[in-house]
Amino acid sequence: MIVITSNQTPEERVQEIISVIEKEGLQVHVSRGTDHTVIGLIGSIQPQLAEHLRQMKGVENVIKITKSYKLASRDFHPENTVIQIGDVRIGGGDLVVMGGPCAVESPEQIDEIARLVKAAGGQVLRGGAFKPRTGPYSFQGIGVEGLVMMAEAGKKHGLLTITEVMTPEYVDVCAEYADILQVGTRNMQNFDLLRKLGECGKPVLLKRGFSATYDEFLNAAEYILAGGNPNVMLCERGIRTFETYTRNTLDLSAIPVLQSLSHLPVISDPSHGTGRRELVEPMTKASVAAGADGLIIEMHTDPDNSMTGDGVQSLFPDQFAGLLRDLEKLAPIVGKRFETPKETVQI
Amino acid sequence: MIVITSNQTPEERVQEIISVIEKEGLQVHVSRGTDHTVIGLIGSIQPQLAEHLRQMKGVENVIKITKSYKLASRDFHPENTVIQIGDVRIGGGDLVVMGGPCAVESPEQIDEIARLVKAAGGQVLRGGAFKPRTGPYSFQGIGVEGLVMMAEAGKKHGLLTITEVMTPEYVDVCAEYADILQVGTRNMQNFDLLRKLGECGKPVLLKRGFSATYDEFLNAAEYILAGGNPNVMLCERGIRTFETYTRNTLDLSAIPVLQSLSHLPVISDPSHGTGRRELVEPMTKASVAAGADGLIIEMHTDPDNSMTGDGVQSLFPDQFAGLLRDLEKLAPIVGKRFETPKETVQI
Amino acid sequence: MIVITSNQTPEERVQEIISVIEKEGLQVHVSRGTDHTVIGLIGSIQPQLAEHLRQMKGVENVIKITKSYKLASRDFHPENTVIQIGDVRIGGGDLVVMGGPCAVESPEQIDEIARLVKAAGGQVLRGGAFKPRTGPYSFQGIGVEGLVMMAEAGKKHGLLTITEVMTPEYVDVCAEYADILQVGTRNMQNFDLLRKLGECGKPVLLKRGFSATYDEFLNAAEYILAGGNPNVMLCERGIRTFETYTRNTLDLSAIPVLQSLSHLPVISDPSHGTGRRELVEPMTKASVAAGADGLIIEMHTDPDNSMTGDGVQSLFPDQFAGLLRDLEKLAPIVGKRFETPKETVQI
Amino acid sequence: MIVITSNQTPEERVQEIISVIEKEGLQVHVSRGTDHTVIGLIGSIQPQLAEHLRQMKGVENVIKITKSYKLASRDFHPENTVIQIGDVRIGGGDLVVMGGPCAVESPEQIDEIARLVKAAGGQVLRGGAFKPRTGPYSFQGIGVEGLVMMAEAGKKHGLLTITEVMTPEYVDVCAEYADILQVGTRNMQNFDLLRKLGECGKPVLLKRGFSATYDEFLNAAEYILAGGNPNVMLCERGIRTFETYTRNTLDLSAIPVLQSLSHLPVISDPSHGTGRRELVEPMTKASVAAGADGLIIEMHTDPDNSMTGDGVQSLFPDQFAGLLRDLEKLAPIVGKRFETPKETVQI
Repeated sequence: MIVITSNQTPEERVQEIISVIEKEGLQVHVSRGTDHTVIGLIGSIQPQLAEHLRQMKGVENVIKITKSYKLASRDFHPENTVIQIGDVRIGGGDLVVMGGPCAVESPEQIDEIARLVKAAGGQVLRGGAFKPRTGPYSFQGIGVEGLVMMAEAGKKHGLLTITEVMTPEYVDVCAEYADILQVGTRNMQNFDLLRKLGECGKPVLLKRGFSATYDEFLNAAEYILAGGNPNVMLCERGIRTFETYTRNTLDLSAIPVLQSLSHLPVISDPSHGTGRRELVEPMTKASVAAGADGLIIEMHTDPDNSMTGDGVQSLFPDQFAGLLRDLEKLAPIVGKRFETPKETVQI
Repeated sequence: MIVITSNQTPEERVQEIISVIEKEGLQVHVSRGTDHTVIGLIGSIQPQLAEHLRQMKGVENVIKITKSYKLASRDFHPENTVIQIGDVRIGGGDLVVMGGPCAVESPEQIDEIARLVKAAGGQVLRGGAFKPRTGPYSFQGIGVEGLVMMAEAGKKHGLLTITEVMTPEYVDVCAEYADILQVGTRNMQNFDLLRKLGECGKPVLLKRGFSATYDEFLNAAEYILAGGNPNVMLCERGIRTFETYTRNTLDLSAIPVLQSLSHLPVISDPSHGTGRRELVEPMTKASVAAGADGLIIEMHTDPDNSMTGDGVQSLFPDQFAGLLRDLEKLAPIVGKRFETPKETVQI
Repeated sequence: MIVITSNQTPEERVQEIISVIEKEGLQVHVSRGTDHTVIGLIGSIQPQLAEHLRQMKGVENVIKITKSYKLASRDFHPENTVIQIGDVRIGGGDLVVMGGPCAVESPEQIDEIARLVKAAGGQVLRGGAFKPRTGPYSFQGIGVEGLVMMAEAGKKHGLLTITEVMTPEYVDVCAEYADILQVGTRNMQNFDLLRKLGECGKPVLLKRGFSATYDEFLNAAEYILAGGNPNVMLCERGIRTFETYTRNTLDLSAIPVLQSLSHLPVISDPSHGTGRRELVEPMTKASVAAGADGLIIEMHTDPDNSMTGDGVQSLFPDQFAGLLRDLEKLAPIVGKRFETPKETVQI
Repeated sequence: MIVITSNQTPEERVQEIISVIEKEGLQVHVSRGTDHTVIGLIGSIQPQLAEHLRQMKGVENVIKITKSYKLASRDFHPENTVIQIGDVRIGGGDLVVMGGPCAVESPEQIDEIARLVKAAGGQVLRGGAFKPRTGPYSFQGIGVEGLVMMAEAGKKHGLLTITEVMTPEYVDVCAEYADILQVGTRNMQNFDLLRKLGECGKPVLLKRGFSATYDEFLNAAEYILAGGNPNVMLCERGIRTFETYTRNTLDLSAIPVLQSLSHLPVISDPSHGTGRRELVEPMTKASVAAGADGLIIEMHTDPDNSMTGDGVQSLFPDQFAGLLRDLEKLAPIVGKRFETPKETVQI
């Protein structure tokens, strides 16, 4: 960490700042420039110290050189984290495809979609039972019932399941029925939820807040890791920018950046990342080319009549299957494994 | 609501879309242009219908003309909401100043600051007992103990109190000790928290999410109002933009915009909105000139040593008192009432 | 186009608005809803009319249904534009790679880099002779001399050349020496420059302004097309967002979006789009997977000592060559043709 | 300036980096931390050096401590710049109001508006003769003729005049007719235009690019100052953010920030900054309360029929006059002087 004093800071004040640092058991290196004095800190630094120093009079800037997160950082964990659930391995070179509807609507709907996800080569069934909605009058999900329906469909068709959990009190019930718990973009900094997920053994897919920096995203993951749960996937799902033609701006640079800063698997969500069905296919391929470890894609048998209105970004089953066959060709070029079933199925 | 079909949509599809609308008991007006067919809907429209129509094939765009929120809208409630707590009236022409530290640290600290807030002319004491922090290793607040300390300080000095509540399970205890419950920027779309606050009688100060549009902000307020709690204040606290010199970009246009769209009082937070002590004074004055109903300002007796690191944006007590004396002159020019005590106090 | 009146607009005012529209020789369809009156316009609409109507009292909103650009729109030109220069075809299914240094520095430098671009399989040599720089004290390019050096290097090694033109008065000299003229991101709305390029026969690569919407981008292209020059390429080069880890946020959704809205070829610039050498490779592949018609990539033989400081985003020659060999495998999977030379060359 | 090496940089590389710095005649201070080595540079640093070092292998970050602009910086020019034109002083404590239409349309229009600006207390007449427009088919201004009309109206009514210049070749003719030359937001980084304005003696009002950081804004001003023209005003006119309800987000923090970083006068443009007539009044007052040295406000006698469509953000003459009377009361509270004429005039 480096502390920069402003150019009018008197020498006594510089000494006061230094003594605050030394009281923490740290060494200092002082460089007196023509305009500024720069104080370098050496040793193991408590996070509060930066904040404390920043607010001292005479301090112009405090620059952190080491990252504020530790367990999520590749510096402290050089090998990739591989999350194994049943025979699905996430982060270890296999491309993992999660597919399904925005919301679970009925046993028939989720069963039929599960069949199609499996037939196309997907490994995980997605579906929401609790839905975060901007306004209070929109459909809010069918609740625990939906969890049960999805668990049955997953088991029947040999798929893992993933579902969103919105509040600490529902972590246990979601963990009972689903294999992976998803934290939505609006909850990325719902710290009580993150803490609760840290205690829960289940793998977590953490979606990036739609205005979260990489640093904030990795700090949010750190909450879960620090709670004792090492099975975290990071999910890029589009950020908010000035461009409104797409629902969000899918930030694919996040994939290689997060993989270099962290050892955690990185998943891409081209459905929410674009909000438009016709963009899901090219942006899925682009995600894989950029190095994604997996994908989460909305697919619906009757998008015209989906209950959440997200049908507009859902693929039709045949589009989904065709896309996965393309991924089978694309994956090996970027060093990933992915296979679709060879038998013909009815779509 | 208006539905626009794309220019290749065949006539039969247009008829299907129309029949979906008519099934909802609505009337339609159809305009066939050279490139597009435009369908106007007349009648009382369910929110799901827009979503349903948007995802139908052949639909290019669905434009809502009436707002998605109702209780928060000035259309349905033309008079200003005035929230009366004790003898403090918020939204009725009085300028309300909330001041205090980022975090409650000790009984002595909060008592001394309360004394200074009161002496300067503030009506509400702010202070956090539960702190939302980007990283898990930062100071997280002293918890319920802090609520007790603040309640005592408020009572002793004749100030109302406001504190942040971060999770549904803490709403009751916060409501027991504080007069106003604050929802932080990261929790603006924590819908379970909003629902719980709707059931709770206490006034709520809802902070705008740092990337929330006005529409999303008012929809978040709608959750609380729809739950039965009419006492909501909207708080502009800076949005996230490309500019990093300031911590956030305080969007003062939000003040007159929200006052025109809604009847709820609008409070400005120049401390978080700028993140720099030297900007708090000019942006406080600008907030009042823009029409704010109140302000929430950080003040600390020893900002160098505040426990959260937010000292860098906290005013010193004499700055705070001087600023409030300036507001006394400014308020009447924009039609607000505000007075500071006339006796001399020791700062 | 649709005009929406606010809910208190009296009937006479609505009639005045309608008569303004009818005076333009247009038909109207009026839908009177419970809250709003909606006026649909039918016929060929002058662009000024929208602006005029928007500012009339009683008008709440004017919504354009047809696009403001015409020549750039796929609606009016359904087939892809293919730009043929010598034996290089851009936009017709061949993947085009433009490579080279940020700035031309010396005859030896540009000659050696040209040799390496050609050997790796690139078709176009890039290099700046006039450099747009944020501050006046930074290196501003070597000027016309650089154009001459680059033209010679291109000719010698059988490469087309592309260079940035910054001001209308230099269009002629740049057009004399280079095959493609590039408009930089800061000049996307330098309308006099665009008009001058419209008169000039040479193909133009137009970079998206770093905060330009798709609509503004296509309107900027429209200036060139409307001036009589049909040979325009659109270049996505990263937009400005809140994320500062990358220099810009490369918006790859722009590729399929622009290709659907327009018939013009779309080029991606992963060098400026990320600003970091280690991200250029994954984002180049992602660009191709998303459907890009071409790439513009910085490569330098001695990035440590480049004169502009953009070395930090320049590939080394061996990275560039390896990346192009990967593109050879990737291109056919997304329906593009690209080949690298089969003879071994010394890098 | 500080150079931070990454944690795997070998000692020999660190020595190479140091020797590059010492070759420039600079001293170094080296701090070896547990993870990083930090090199502090002492002496007068050329701007290119930062760029050079940043791209050297082994360098993780280069942090500039002193600013990249010099002439625009308050560090080098502690007193406010006061621009005196005739008897109008800008930046010296007087509040300066520039008012007028978006575009000059006819001699009668500009004469009548000039009369009303003067009567209300404004000191400068604004009006565009050359208009930057997003699309090529929109009204582009009436050209030199408009300059003549405005100059006559200004002279007749005792007002200074300001007009936008869009391209270097028109600087001379604009300077012949107008007292202040305005650089529009899209041209903030049109460096040839800035250079030309540096040579021209006339005062310049430089508008902030709608996505420019403070640092980029001040570097653009530096181009003009470095060219020999010290008479530059900075104009905040709204930035582009995710919020689309307002045309731009007026960043009022820019006013005190720019005044602290620079000695140049700061003007606010609430008309373009909001794009909505009903927000101009509160945001004008807020601008003054935040410390603005002046305002540029659109006013039109017949906004319904303005030729540019910017009527929607233009005040009516009586609103403009009423607003200026309010500013007369507000100005002294923030230490500014402003007076409106005491005789009654016909509006």
